[in-house]
Amino acid sequence: MSSEFGKAVKISIFGESHAAALGVVIDGLPAGESVDIESIKAFISRRSPSGDYSTSRRESDEPEILSGVFRGKTCGSPLCIMFRNTDARPDDYSDFEHVPRPSHADYTAHVRYGGFNDFRGAGHLSGRLTLPLCAAGAICRDILSRRGVNIGAHIASISDVNDEKFNSTDISEEVLGSLRASAFPLLNPTLEEKMRSRISAAHSAGDSLGGTIECAVTGFPCGVGSPLFDGIENRIASAVFAVPSVKGIEFGSGFAGSALTGSENNDAFLLHEGKIATRTNNSGGILGGISDGMPIVFRVALKPVPSIAVAQKTVDIENLRECEISIKGRHDACVVPRAVPCIEAAAAVTLLDMLICERN
Amino acid sequence: MSSEFGKAVKISIFGESHAAALGVVIDGLPAGESVDIESIKAFISRRSPSGDYSTSRRESDEPEILSGVFRGKTCGSPLCIMFRNTDARPDDYSDFEHVPRPSHADYTAHVRYGGFNDFRGAGHLSGRLTLPLCAAGAICRDILSRRGVNIGAHIASISDVNDEKFNSTDISEEVLGSLRASAFPLLNPTLEEKMRSRISAAHSAGDSLGGTIECAVTGFPCGVGSPLFDGIENRIASAVFAVPSVKGIEFGSGFAGSALTGSENNDAFLLHEGKIATRTNNSGGILGGISDGMPIVFRVALKPVPSIAVAQKTVDIENLRECEISIKGRHDACVVPRAVPCIEAAAAVTLLDMLICERN
Amino acid sequence: MSSEFGKAVKISIFGESHAAALGVVIDGLPAGESVDIESIKAFISRRSPSGDYSTSRRESDEPEILSGVFRGKTCGSPLCIMFRNTDARPDDYSDFEHVPRPSHADYTAHVRYGGFNDFRGAGHLSGRLTLPLCAAGAICRDILSRRGVNIGAHIASISDVNDEKFNSTDISEEVLGSLRASAFPLLNPTLEEKMRSRISAAHSAGDSLGGTIECAVTGFPCGVGSPLFDGIENRIASAVFAVPSVKGIEFGSGFAGSALTGSENNDAFLLHEGKIATRTNNSGGILGGISDGMPIVFRVALKPVPSIAVAQKTVDIENLRECEISIKGRHDACVVPRAVPCIEAAAAVTLLDMLICERN
Amino acid sequence: MSSEFGKAVKISIFGESHAAALGVVIDGLPAGESVDIESIKAFISRRSPSGDYSTSRRESDEPEILSGVFRGKTCGSPLCIMFRNTDARPDDYSDFEHVPRPSHADYTAHVRYGGFNDFRGAGHLSGRLTLPLCAAGAICRDILSRRGVNIGAHIASISDVNDEKFNSTDISEEVLGSLRASAFPLLNPTLEEKMRSRISAAHSAGDSLGGTIECAVTGFPCGVGSPLFDGIENRIASAVFAVPSVKGIEFGSGFAGSALTGSENNDAFLLHEGKIATRTNNSGGILGGISDGMPIVFRVALKPVPSIAVAQKTVDIENLRECEISIKGRHDACVVPRAVPCIEAAAAVTLLDMLICERN
Repeated sequence: MSSEFGKAVKISIFGESHAAALGVVIDGLPAGESVDIESIKAFISRRSPSGDYSTSRRESDEPEILSGVFRGKTCGSPLCIMFRNTDARPDDYSDFEHVPRPSHADYTAHVRYGGFNDFRGAGHLSGRLTLPLCAAGAICRDILSRRGVNIGAHIASISDVNDEKFNSTDISEEVLGSLRASAFPLLNPTLEEKMRSRISAAHSAGDSLGGTIECAVTGFPCGVGSPLFDGIENRIASAVFAVPSVKGIEFGSGFAGSALTGSENNDAFLLHEGKIATRTNNSGGILGGISDGMPIVFRVALKPVPSIAVAQKTVDIENLRECEISIKGRHDACVVPRAVPCIEAAAAVTLLDMLICERN
Repeated sequence: MSSEFGKAVKISIFGESHAAALGVVIDGLPAGESVDIESIKAFISRRSPSGDYSTSRRESDEPEILSGVFRGKTCGSPLCIMFRNTDARPDDYSDFEHVPRPSHADYTAHVRYGGFNDFRGAGHLSGRLTLPLCAAGAICRDILSRRGVNIGAHIASISDVNDEKFNSTDISEEVLGSLRASAFPLLNPTLEEKMRSRISAAHSAGDSLGGTIECAVTGFPCGVGSPLFDGIENRIASAVFAVPSVKGIEFGSGFAGSALTGSENNDAFLLHEGKIATRTNNSGGILGGISDGMPIVFRVALKPVPSIAVAQKTVDIENLRECEISIKGRHDACVVPRAVPCIEAAAAVTLLDMLICERN
Repeated sequence: MSSEFGKAVKISIFGESHAAALGVVIDGLPAGESVDIESIKAFISRRSPSGDYSTSRRESDEPEILSGVFRGKTCGSPLCIMFRNTDARPDDYSDFEHVPRPSHADYTAHVRYGGFNDFRGAGHLSGRLTLPLCAAGAICRDILSRRGVNIGAHIASISDVNDEKFNSTDISEEVLGSLRASAFPLLNPTLEEKMRSRISAAHSAGDSLGGTIECAVTGFPCGVGSPLFDGIENRIASAVFAVPSVKGIEFGSGFAGSALTGSENNDAFLLHEGKIATRTNNSGGILGGISDGMPIVFRVALKPVPSIAVAQKTVDIENLRECEISIKGRHDACVVPRAVPCIEAAAAVTLLDMLICERN
Repeated sequence: MSSEFGKAVKISIFGESHAAALGVVIDGLPAGESVDIESIKAFISRRSPSGDYSTSRRESDEPEILSGVFRGKTCGSPLCIMFRNTDARPDDYSDFEHVPRPSHADYTAHVRYGGFNDFRGAGHLSGRLTLPLCAAGAICRDILSRRGVNIGAHIASISDVNDEKFNSTDISEEVLGSLRASAFPLLNPTLEEKMRSRISAAHSAGDSLGGTIECAVTGFPCGVGSPLFDGIENRIASAVFAVPSVKGIEFGSGFAGSALTGSENNDAFLLHEGKIATRTNNSGGILGGISDGMPIVFRVALKPVPSIAVAQKTVDIENLRECEISIKGRHDACVVPRAVPCIEAAAAVTLLDMLICERN
């Protein structure tokens, strides 16, 4: 336990990479919210493999809403969206049952579940589980959007190539929208070619890459969140680590800010059109766990894809002897572009929950 | 809501900086565990101000156990520890009621609680609330220790001065113990002077510093934690952001690892004395949210202390006009040394909860 | 919110009476437990309408396991079971959109969900939602059974006809098993005819009946449960009220026991084959919220089915005027026999959760 | 685990009968609510022993608010109220360490906590823990009262003497207020003498009595609560079973209603001064778990006090041999009058939580 998240808006994710289906139950959505299946499809299509160096598994990812929607709107009861697995090829993984792939969760899941886990394609620990997360995120994102809250993210780095950063005091919905419309979202699109060549080179070498993603949320009202364990940072962090490969998160000036002085890092308050704002936004829109009305900005670090073709040392856990493994299955050389909507989804699910939960 | 954390071992923290008292209720501790008040005192004394550039507020921080201990052992019912506030000087803060300090939570708490929050010394959002967190952490740490799990942390950086990093595949209890015994814990103690001079310089300039802390946990059994939202990363992250000033966290190779290739970052499995281990530990002891038996290693970033004497721009929120503020109260020029036990406490509370919760 | 229950074993129920499907996600089942689809089918068939005075809606209630089972066993990840609705006739209910049926939840759901609720057949508030509850109960029951915990229930009364009560100090698995095998479970089966004639008479009169159900659990180990809010009584009660029409619950001697003296009601301890037992079981196997090793025994009261053909006063909530209603749809004259497995399911889900949760 | 309750307004109760103190942390109270210590004292004084046949333990029960109140109002952070134990006489219980009192929780707590529980006066399982429950209830009650929600309860029966029942369609605040003002609250006060004589007779015989309590809540808005596991019945039930000795609960017509026909038990809707109401209130104000705007009415059954002077059979659990026990300590012959505010408190805590939680 547990694949559940949320307090007022609770999501419960089910499914395995090669099970009959996967999906999500969302309990606690406000009633009367339009649910647009095309919007959901558009959102989840952004996490679909598409490029040359992505997995060759091709799933239609056709969402079926089983419950919770009546006359096109949420009806107050739990909304369940399901996706059938259609292109599952579990045999691709039979070699790995007793030979855990380095830096994958094969070994830990084996121990955790006493060897009963569905190891095929990592089972419930597969990146494929971000599909229901994105479906939930799409629904929450649309509800947030109708309340004036917008979310967007971009590839902040792949390997050693770094995109620009958000201007965190002034992020327009135009910028966020164009990022969301891009299959390779960058603030400086001229970097795409360079990043793609890095991915191509890694793929050719049988290797893989990681990267970072920067996400921004605008229009989130001031005064939401709580100190100690229920702050926005706590909650977003606990959601984004659900995305496989995420190994770090920082808000506002984050790790770099920790090397500054107070006078450099503090965000002076000012009046802007009669409202309180801050001159800089090193806080990432969050003070004491509570939103301050400025854009919420955070960055996550994704480790390089652990599935690589080059030979690696591992251990045959059945016979307890060291051996080598070379992973030839269907996988990506770099998941960062596909992970962008997943990070947005994690933010959307968290922030809608917090917005509803704390409007008490 | 809410100042609560945990699933099997639940903590509920109460108190304000200048209220009568502050404390913590810990519900769900295993019965029969020795509770050593001296061990608790020793732990919490590490977060007490002591140096030249720390707050001059002097609290005795005398813990009183109100319940949950019988004949020196946990008795299965909720354990409550309380600390009286004795050196509270709420008048120090009267100037700030309507003039939020930049990068403090004064403004957001005011909005969050409709102006009813106890603003004196940041109230419930004060760093003083890490005192009950440390008390809970001390108890959990002792219980973990009896199960072979040890926790230690060091100052990884202050300003631009960086300590060495843990050798994450081989961390001895000796090293952790000597860190815990130090008021200024460093892997390379020769750096203390340099760091202290940075703090001294910042203090003299009416300014402040931040830094990073690296924490390690050894002996944590393999197979604890769950994928998606209940992984060790999710849970530790949601705890450490309860420590004021924390703005980032990374596990294992973290942000730096995101720039590596898979072949560089992957941790090969090997057999070590008949048991499965990894050659490197870029995963920080966690794969798929589940412990892999290697040391759990993470780093957190703390922003510079927002209370600085140099003049800052802010807004008088009562009269809605811009003004200046210079903070002369009792506060630290750098909280990183005092935050070290707080980070350990956050890890202890989380990992005991997970250990007990998932032993199902 | 919310259709979720449980702490270690969490269930999340979704679906509406006339939605595409309904089902349940069970998160936290121990890995390695056999899942027998035939056993699930047998369990849920007991809640199917069958008699002459039951609803004429005929659903195949074919369970489809979407996830969480691998090689016939639970694999540690959330188990989702889904049932398609096939015989839904939503038009039967169109008359009721603005005319709430007395003692149904039409009116309260309308207010609760701002008029957006799926009112057809009561939507998510339909008795049909006990189908996924029973599916979850069947799985939990089988796991409990393998741990020596058995559950059975009987019709304790319908209208003014009362079955015998359990001999609460000595309940054999034979008795429980024969109850579970019966479509009209009674400790004194000779009462069936009398009860059926009461139902028949009510049906002929366009009226309906209620009744009570007594449930027993044997083999549940001593020492599970907690005082205050997490006792067995608290938890079972919070589960059984999920079954529509349940309006009361009592444990052990219950309401009748409240009129006894302490010397009459107390359960003396004794040694039985070297183990501690009680001479009587007026406590219903629970002291201080904690199991005492004796059979857990409780009774629930179900109100008469609110759907009746005789004319009733109600209010047209669209036009705010009083009117009459006569309910001619498909419904039961008495749901007590069909509710028996639902009560067992509520007990099974609760007790497996508590057994696993508190084995810490 | 756990002594916690609530979702939006969470209470965490700590303390043992003979520990240094006991109290409650309330997390999530709306900010800006007046906290009147005199009102709290008046409420908790109603559960104090007073009569001739009550325990002779005399505690001052002086509440100390440790946190969460600023300038006389809730400030948004957790409110902690503490009570010191002053008249604890733990030696009174030394005889019982290995000789569990029949129908007390001594034996089950011993097993549950591996013998480490504080057995003195039942420790955390003592009726004394209703003191912090009442303190929390008083605060929640006052907040509800300012929102037009009133709560009152009366002794519905003691032994074989039955008070009248509420007229559940029309309960005035005058009636509720006079009940709350009475030390022996009855709708028909002429029954007091008869009830007191029953208690006196039981006391003289070294025996004890139980009884029932009926509670009503008026002014609770329509449309609060949720189907399945989060209905008002589920939630109130899970709270009232926290009061020691409660063994049953029924809402509206409850067990008696289960013997009626639908046409007898259904509550016809009508228009009353332009608003929707019901002609009768057999539903106890709850349909489908959701409030319908009518008074919420429920009854609870309390078993007779298990502490009796007459000799009882029990087992010496250290030496595993049968023996006899006669309980001469300080205890009540009948707790029903003192339990009345406890039941109100359970209702207040639950309904404030639900009111705030579901205003989403």
